[in-house]
Order: sequence, then structure tokens, then C-alpha cells
Amino acid sequence: MLGRLNHVAIAVPDLAAASVVYRDTLGAKVAMPQALPEHGVTVVFIDLGNTKVELLEPLGENSPIAAFLEKNPSGGMHHVCYEVDDILAARDRLKASGARVLGDGNPKIGAHGKPVLFLHPKDFAGTLVELEQA
Amino acid sequence: MLGRLNHVAIAVPDLAAASVVYRDTLGAKVAMPQALPEHGVTVVFIDLGNTKVELLEPLGENSPIAAFLEKNPSGGMHHVCYEVDDILAARDRLKASGARVLGDGNPKIGAHGKPVLFLHPKDFAGTLVELEQA
Repeated sequence: MLGRLNHVAIAVPDLAAASVVYRDTLGAKVAMPQALPEHGVTVVFIDLGNTKVELLEPLGENSPIAAFLEKNPSGGMHHVCYEVDDILAARDRLKASGARVLGDGNPKIGAHGKPVLFLHPKDFAGTLVELEQA
Repeated sequence: MLGRLNHVAIAVPDLAAASVVYRDTLGAKVAMPQALPEHGVTVVFIDLGNTKVELLEPLGENSPIAAFLEKNPSGGMHHVCYEVDDILAARDRLKASGARVLGDGNPKIGAHGKPVLFLHPKDFAGTLVELEQA
């Protein structure tokens, strides 16, 4: 069922500063920021050739990453995103196995314009898992 | 400078249980455990096609992931590993930019038999970064 790693997301308190670290200190290919108000974040994608890092900064009130950054003020790894061929089939299989799907269980449209779902960290070795339709 | 994402490492309190979640619940390709006593961990690699997840369980006294698991008893994302073509040139460039290299600054041999270094999380958006010679 599980496909490629689409991205690793890192929540950061200062997107511009983190972008400079990845571009200048690490010498990576860093894209321009994209504001995603419907997700409460501004994102910057870093192209690593085989996959991506997604830097996330809170946007607006009630950002879903605000609490994470209160606990981790320097930033930190926030989630991993795996691709699946059929997100509804994956959701149903996961729910049947007892895993918890976050929210109302219906996919939303993610940063790449594709359906995504999030899974409860406690069911996946303490890691917030995003699934994205490949 | 920065090459591919070699792996995302997830520290777990119970490697067998986490392997079952990835193999059976998520349907991933999960390899056999490898004990790495010189690194204080037992590892399981999960092949995602484009990159890998590395599950880490403490091995022996003074495991370098023991403190992380005390803070995160369910487990959690521990580090990311990026490939570089020349690890000594990368280290020297990073040190010149003011970034902190952990340990004595000399590469050790990692889980893939290649030289690796770790960089201070505070210099990289709160994320522990491993560099591996490609």
C-alpha cells in the first residue's frame, strides 16, 4: 500500500531564516514561499532530487502548527507524508485495522492540489503521518 | 552541496511493534533488524522506493536515543539524513559558516558502512541532521 515518501515536514518559527540555512549553509534548492491560508501555514519546498523537505511557518490565527512550535520554539520535524495510489482504499484499510484518521475522515486538498489525510501519531510510532494520493 | 534524502529516522520504544505497524497496517517493505552495538541502536530499514525510513530502538547502556525516548515515550521523528558527495568538504564548509558539528568533528562509519556526521539541531531549524557520504 505505502508508496514513495512525498516529503518530510519541518515546522519553523521563521521561514525566511530557515530558507537561508537550507539555501546558503546547506546549498539546497529552495523554492519560493507559498501561503496556504486554508491550511494555516506558509510553506517552502526544498527539492532533494528524490523527495522534498517542506518547511512550515504558521499563517493566521489557529494555525495547526502553533501548538507544536510553542512546545518546540526552535522548530522541529512535524510530519512525514507518504504517497498512496488510492487514498480512500487506504483510509478504509487503516480504519479497519483500528488506526485513527484525524478530522472527519474525509480527504482535504493538500499543498500539491491532491487529496490528503492525516493519521494519529500514537498509532504510528509517535509520528504524525500524512497520506497523499499519488 | 545537499544531495538526496537518504533516510528519515524514527526512534521507537518497541522495534518489533513498530515494524508490524509499517509492514501490516501500512503495507510497506520492512527489512530485518540489524544490531549496531557501536552506535547503541538496533535499526530496521523500510524501503519506500525513493528513500527509506529507519526505525531505531535503543541497544545497550548509554544509547544515544535513550534521552529522546524518555521525552517521547511513544517514539517520534529523530533525525533526517542527507547525502553529500564529499563529507569532509561539507564539514569544512559548514564549520566555516558557523554551524556546529557534533562529536569530535570526524566522520564515523554509519549504518550503511559509509562516513557520517551529525549537525547541531539548533543550527538547522530544530532538526538533528545527519550527513552521509553518497
